[in-house]
Amino acid sequence: MKVLEKLAQEKVLRDPIHDFIHIQDKLILDLINTKEFQRLRRVQQLGVSNSIFHGATHDRFGHCSGAYELARRVTDYFDEYYATKEEGDGLWNPEERMVTLAAALLHDVGHGAFSHTFEHLFDTDHEAMTQQIIMGDTEVHEVLLQEGPDFPNKVASVIAKTYPNPQVVQLISSQLDVDRMDYLLRDAYYTGASYGEFDLSRIVRMLRPYKNGIAVNIGGMHAVESYLVARYQMYLQVYFHPVSRGMEILLEHILYRVKELLASGKEDKSLVGPLLAPAFQPDHDLTVSEYLRLDDNVFLAAINGWQDSDDTILSDLSRRFLGRKPLKSIQINEQTAPHLDRLEKVVKEAGFDPRYYTARNDAYDLPYDDYKPTAKKPRTQIEIVLPDGSQRELSELSTLVAAIKGRASLDQRFFFPREMLYNGPDDLFSEVHADFKSFIKNDSFTPDGQ
Amino acid sequence: MKVLEKLAQEKVLRDPIHDFIHIQDKLILDLINTKEFQRLRRVQQLGVSNSIFHGATHDRFGHCSGAYELARRVTDYFDEYYATKEEGDGLWNPEERMVTLAAALLHDVGHGAFSHTFEHLFDTDHEAMTQQIIMGDTEVHEVLLQEGPDFPNKVASVIAKTYPNPQVVQLISSQLDVDRMDYLLRDAYYTGASYGEFDLSRIVRMLRPYKNGIAVNIGGMHAVESYLVARYQMYLQVYFHPVSRGMEILLEHILYRVKELLASGKEDKSLVGPLLAPAFQPDHDLTVSEYLRLDDNVFLAAINGWQDSDDTILSDLSRRFLGRKPLKSIQINEQTAPHLDRLEKVVKEAGFDPRYYTARNDAYDLPYDDYKPTAKKPRTQIEIVLPDGSQRELSELSTLVAAIKGRASLDQRFFFPREMLYNGPDDLFSEVHADFKSFIKNDSFTPDGQ
Amino acid sequence: MKVLEKLAQEKVLRDPIHDFIHIQDKLILDLINTKEFQRLRRVQQLGVSNSIFHGATHDRFGHCSGAYELARRVTDYFDEYYATKEEGDGLWNPEERMVTLAAALLHDVGHGAFSHTFEHLFDTDHEAMTQQIIMGDTEVHEVLLQEGPDFPNKVASVIAKTYPNPQVVQLISSQLDVDRMDYLLRDAYYTGASYGEFDLSRIVRMLRPYKNGIAVNIGGMHAVESYLVARYQMYLQVYFHPVSRGMEILLEHILYRVKELLASGKEDKSLVGPLLAPAFQPDHDLTVSEYLRLDDNVFLAAINGWQDSDDTILSDLSRRFLGRKPLKSIQINEQTAPHLDRLEKVVKEAGFDPRYYTARNDAYDLPYDDYKPTAKKPRTQIEIVLPDGSQRELSELSTLVAAIKGRASLDQRFFFPREMLYNGPDDLFSEVHADFKSFIKNDSFTPDGQ
Amino acid sequence: MKVLEKLAQEKVLRDPIHDFIHIQDKLILDLINTKEFQRLRRVQQLGVSNSIFHGATHDRFGHCSGAYELARRVTDYFDEYYATKEEGDGLWNPEERMVTLAAALLHDVGHGAFSHTFEHLFDTDHEAMTQQIIMGDTEVHEVLLQEGPDFPNKVASVIAKTYPNPQVVQLISSQLDVDRMDYLLRDAYYTGASYGEFDLSRIVRMLRPYKNGIAVNIGGMHAVESYLVARYQMYLQVYFHPVSRGMEILLEHILYRVKELLASGKEDKSLVGPLLAPAFQPDHDLTVSEYLRLDDNVFLAAINGWQDSDDTILSDLSRRFLGRKPLKSIQINEQTAPHLDRLEKVVKEAGFDPRYYTARNDAYDLPYDDYKPTAKKPRTQIEIVLPDGSQRELSELSTLVAAIKGRASLDQRFFFPREMLYNGPDDLFSEVHADFKSFIKNDSFTPDGQ
Repeated sequence: MKVLEKLAQEKVLRDPIHDFIHIQDKLILDLINTKEFQRLRRVQQLGVSNSIFHGATHDRFGHCSGAYELARRVTDYFDEYYATKEEGDGLWNPEERMVTLAAALLHDVGHGAFSHTFEHLFDTDHEAMTQQIIMGDTEVHEVLLQEGPDFPNKVASVIAKTYPNPQVVQLISSQLDVDRMDYLLRDAYYTGASYGEFDLSRIVRMLRPYKNGIAVNIGGMHAVESYLVARYQMYLQVYFHPVSRGMEILLEHILYRVKELLASGKEDKSLVGPLLAPAFQPDHDLTVSEYLRLDDNVFLAAINGWQDSDDTILSDLSRRFLGRKPLKSIQINEQTAPHLDRLEKVVKEAGFDPRYYTARNDAYDLPYDDYKPTAKKPRTQIEIVLPDGSQRELSELSTLVAAIKGRASLDQRFFFPREMLYNGPDDLFSEVHADFKSFIKNDSFTPDGQ
Repeated sequence: MKVLEKLAQEKVLRDPIHDFIHIQDKLILDLINTKEFQRLRRVQQLGVSNSIFHGATHDRFGHCSGAYELARRVTDYFDEYYATKEEGDGLWNPEERMVTLAAALLHDVGHGAFSHTFEHLFDTDHEAMTQQIIMGDTEVHEVLLQEGPDFPNKVASVIAKTYPNPQVVQLISSQLDVDRMDYLLRDAYYTGASYGEFDLSRIVRMLRPYKNGIAVNIGGMHAVESYLVARYQMYLQVYFHPVSRGMEILLEHILYRVKELLASGKEDKSLVGPLLAPAFQPDHDLTVSEYLRLDDNVFLAAINGWQDSDDTILSDLSRRFLGRKPLKSIQINEQTAPHLDRLEKVVKEAGFDPRYYTARNDAYDLPYDDYKPTAKKPRTQIEIVLPDGSQRELSELSTLVAAIKGRASLDQRFFFPREMLYNGPDDLFSEVHADFKSFIKNDSFTPDGQ
Repeated sequence: MKVLEKLAQEKVLRDPIHDFIHIQDKLILDLINTKEFQRLRRVQQLGVSNSIFHGATHDRFGHCSGAYELARRVTDYFDEYYATKEEGDGLWNPEERMVTLAAALLHDVGHGAFSHTFEHLFDTDHEAMTQQIIMGDTEVHEVLLQEGPDFPNKVASVIAKTYPNPQVVQLISSQLDVDRMDYLLRDAYYTGASYGEFDLSRIVRMLRPYKNGIAVNIGGMHAVESYLVARYQMYLQVYFHPVSRGMEILLEHILYRVKELLASGKEDKSLVGPLLAPAFQPDHDLTVSEYLRLDDNVFLAAINGWQDSDDTILSDLSRRFLGRKPLKSIQINEQTAPHLDRLEKVVKEAGFDPRYYTARNDAYDLPYDDYKPTAKKPRTQIEIVLPDGSQRELSELSTLVAAIKGRASLDQRFFFPREMLYNGPDDLFSEVHADFKSFIKNDSFTPDGQ
Repeated sequence: MKVLEKLAQEKVLRDPIHDFIHIQDKLILDLINTKEFQRLRRVQQLGVSNSIFHGATHDRFGHCSGAYELARRVTDYFDEYYATKEEGDGLWNPEERMVTLAAALLHDVGHGAFSHTFEHLFDTDHEAMTQQIIMGDTEVHEVLLQEGPDFPNKVASVIAKTYPNPQVVQLISSQLDVDRMDYLLRDAYYTGASYGEFDLSRIVRMLRPYKNGIAVNIGGMHAVESYLVARYQMYLQVYFHPVSRGMEILLEHILYRVKELLASGKEDKSLVGPLLAPAFQPDHDLTVSEYLRLDDNVFLAAINGWQDSDDTILSDLSRRFLGRKPLKSIQINEQTAPHLDRLEKVVKEAGFDPRYYTARNDAYDLPYDDYKPTAKKPRTQIEIVLPDGSQRELSELSTLVAAIKGRASLDQRFFFPREMLYNGPDDLFSEVHADFKSFIKNDSFTPDGQ
């Protein structure tokens, strides 16, 4: 392997979460300066969440830089205190430093604008795209080659979780990784939600490399508990927020409507413009270079224009989206969901096409689970190291984590136009609206009107 | 005046700076929900500053909400402790509350994308635009009318500084106003620059209404000193940062090039698309509704597309801008500036058209000044109230402020392509570059090569 | 009731947790200025915990002021939004404000130096003492009488939980009260332990008075979860810390030794000095005025002097205490505790009197429980208010709280001299020490040596 | 020199300012565990300042640990980036690490209780005492000897500023040293005064060793400006606070009264007890071991007892001190001070002995100065390094610092009993008090009554 080129003087980026991002290697500096990485400045981290948490304007550039910084701190710490002495001792191999740093920095480089929505509609996958950017004809790939002909492949395999060293893989992607640690703190800072905070310094100091991955010294157990509780809270309070989801559904329906208008021939390519056109082209797989042109701005500028569309559904949805008029929602569950057609019917009576103005949406997260070999995606469980070196799975020692383990957080909702809740004096649909509201109690759908 | 409609239960927005923005009045809630105010979500507060401080992604929606929140706190405090008892006693009239809150919220509603650049190129003025939005055919205007037929006019006159009550005007716009207090704290939080912090709670508690405006109790003098020092530091370190300015110049040259291409007939309207077209139409004054369609996304999406332009200058500048390759710079001064043609000549020899690839740029700020009746724009000086009620201008009491008073911060720079500093092994222009570099010492232009 | 005398201008105390403590009433200001309240400046909040968290030097003056400030915020909020309209409507009666504020301020006024240790050894009770200070011949009592002849009694009954209005009682003392909210945040700030933080502003805004006490709006449920998790973590990581407990045991054994020396006649009253003498006098109940003379300084100065005692046990323990040489400890449990005599025997062989140099100590806390009518001290459960106004007990809605509910945190330990773990080259007792260490594994007592 | 013994695993102390204090060397750990260093837990950092900033309860143990931590960060940074390559290159010699760390840790080990007051009354000097503790028969001395027979002497010479390497001396003691950087941040955190904050990380990264000491890279100039402004503000607002000074004077007068009572034979040694006795013994120089027994507790416990003294002046002053009834004050100046006898006369008429109940007190600080070879104590000026390596004194580049340079902050006050300002209805001395108040305007002494 090529000898790493250290910068004569480290460079720093000012970061509100980690104070400074320390850049000590030419390779990392060059990666940051690629156009593919710079594009992350134009992709917001939380998509439309800033419609409810107006402070949350941060982008993926900051998050990826932060994940890198955490990887740097952990590997520095391992290099100093847990460097391998002889093969097979299960300690940390300092030669893994650069692949770890590069993978941390690039782990989200394939994220597109409004990721979830985009992937759903255009059948893409940001992890696959990250692989393609690392391996394809890109500036990122060129820079990675500086380190050796096989280096891009190594970085890609870390992200694909096929890299042979489980320590490196788990630092980048596991239930306690630099990705999650950064985004929880960052999202908490930008939303202003104090519940996302935990004791990062403590966790970093308590990580321990071992043969099969990364464990946590018992002295860090409570800090990891806090981290998992922070994660649980952020999901319930921020990521699942009904207002964001009401905005996301508007976005999805806008793009779906455009698709339909194109498919039906009612509109032609000029509706979407040259940058968006490839995404809307039927049966076309987006190339890396087409994909990389798409950022938040391209979509938002298009929606801005669609406010003038002759298609009243498209223009109306676009105006709602930019004017921040999210669809409203109520909770549903397995028992009540089968009766939703009754609500959809009322919405239709009020003049709204349910295909565009209603939706059922499930928000789901499993905050923590132990290793389940038969699961579809078995999780790497969090191992705690006892003073004598033996290990125990976290939930065996923690009451709190035992309570969370394997229990999914789930929020199922039905979305509909805010007009349905209207009851002003001059309401044309007052009877229909009253009918609709008779199905709602405590923000939940009650088909029996109880 | 109409009786104000209070919300049955106050609503809050979570804000990372002020914890919560408290909304207690239907009027304020309705203003926030207008499409003109929601548009501020799509205009970044610091324009391209996040090219150097990557955390600084915040938008004008957050800032305007924050300025409102500060106005709310101050007026609540005045209502409780400094309400007028009889006419002419110089205290605070609680009836001014709503006009103050509305003006604080709306003070930046006319800001456009990349304000400074935009105004310079398209000859607009964001303060005039704010007036037009408040007085024109807008949702904002409609909402303001709820409060009375003359209310929009009152709010507009506060922003124009022609409102008769100087207390209200100074809270919104003076050397110590809710606008500056919010943006300093907010910009500090988002950039991660700790030097922008000061003791907000102390200042708010020490403000005192008096006949001619707002003064500060002597107990708050040191907090005001810190505020002015914070402002001074933010200008020098954040707002004047050469990298942001190197990006801003790229942006300005891109738009200027587009203008030229349209004027020369080399390109037609399709280059800019329907939303941008009115701005580029010669001799056309932008209407309010045209103006309000322009946000950051529209410009950034256009620049994204211009990367494919056949015009090599336009496509090159656009790629530099999105790839974050700012023009580099050196300091100049009155003595050295007249010799800049020598540098421009060298830049030209290296193959760059100086009109697009060089610029002279002055960053200027006057952190504080006392009232100078003969000045072009006389400033409202900061008055300190002594225990016996008499007043003194701040710099009479503060050594620190006396040092800053009337002394402008100025940073004059010459910008040029980063290639001019290149000296790699395979440099075609190595002699030209060496020539260029011979004019630079300690980041300054030294025409005599000393 | 007497009309409350408001201060012309509120006074503030700068507070690192709440920014400012706002004092708006003459009564509160006068209470703070009593000598009994000022004495709280000389009683540390966390006793010897600063032996492990060196930052935790804060005193009960700060905590009591903070609890008052929270009570002020809550009652201000209730006064504004939840004031009673007609009798029996279950809302907040603004006339309860002053009794609430006074009780919050004074709730810990009876705390003595090193409370737990002191109460255990001298058979006192800080809550009873708080009552006596409020009702007895004190400056506090005099000030309270300003408000009416029955006012001291009302304040005392709030603290005794016999006050008829359960809203007031629960604000001062329940599972979600101003006492706990302040001390968790304050202890977290001073120790530097980030896990003690939670979203105070959110909780304050979500409290709702109802007929039987104080409930929490559903919108605050997650904030309350965080608060309970913070409490759980602070107990396990700070309040239960083995090093503090090792110091506390030293302190207790020192005072116990002094008692013994006095009882045996080996030492006379001069050993303790005039201020401490009443506490050590056999069969003497401390008067309020005797009690109020005792503060941390009196004990620590005495221990300083006892370092010179002729009694080698007293001087040795005193030196260990001031030199911060805590007893070390290992975990025990119900199974292993009966075998502790084997360890005590080894400690004795190493030359240490087990009565003074060993101890068994249980740290116990029940983080949350619902109302159990048959419990010895039934707890007021936390009620959550649903949108339709109905209530549910917190753990019915929260997975996290359900996991904690009714489950005690318990840490049982055996303490012994640090010398027992010594194994240096010139160790006279090396065999004894080796014997001792053979009983320890993973910081736990293993009588079978496994 | 002995090879340094590194700890197998670093130990940490949780610190609210620096998150963690990292201890990597056995020597440092052993120093912290000495009884002389542990004594610093019983000496408050800001003396009686917590009488006005109740949060400021922190002790010198925390500050000394923090100064050490900063020294550790700076030396680690220098070791990595600025280690000397050849003799005389002016860079940092890594062998200076341990002497720097030990000196930083021990720099205040000789501080006594209520330092300033104590030194004034008992004619001691904390810097001399620090030397004696390092060089004398102490545990600290023993531990330092581990490093080599000459090591204690080296550490002592750093503190005496006679150590040959100016880099080491300036890190410990200069106008920009680890002592000041820690105490400003720490005092700001504990008081809650936000104006004491500055950008520590930035400064640490911008320090540069050079031949004659430590300079600052130009990139850190603004951070140093903020640091100096923070220092200026902390002096004016915290350290000079009239309430603290009013308490300090009470303390000084108490101790002075005790001295007098002993000298006059009205009281014997039992008034002060065995630990304080040596300090009050006439013509006796305190030995190190006598000195080290004195801490805050010994004084405060004694004052507690003196409340019962038969001497009414002593008991009254002691009660005022513990009940926090500071002397009040007004500003004086060179013109008005000569007329103070007129005020003292009135105080006497009101029944107070002016020797005990009045005082003149000057608070003085010079925030920054450049090197003045002829000054009594010439200061090491702050040097800024330009890109070409040349240096400039800070105030040549900074307007702000130029304004502060060489200009002392001075607050001269006259202190008197609070009763002099009383004007209640049943005031026996109402005429005398009115007379007194006629001399005061805007908190200043106006002998002419203007």
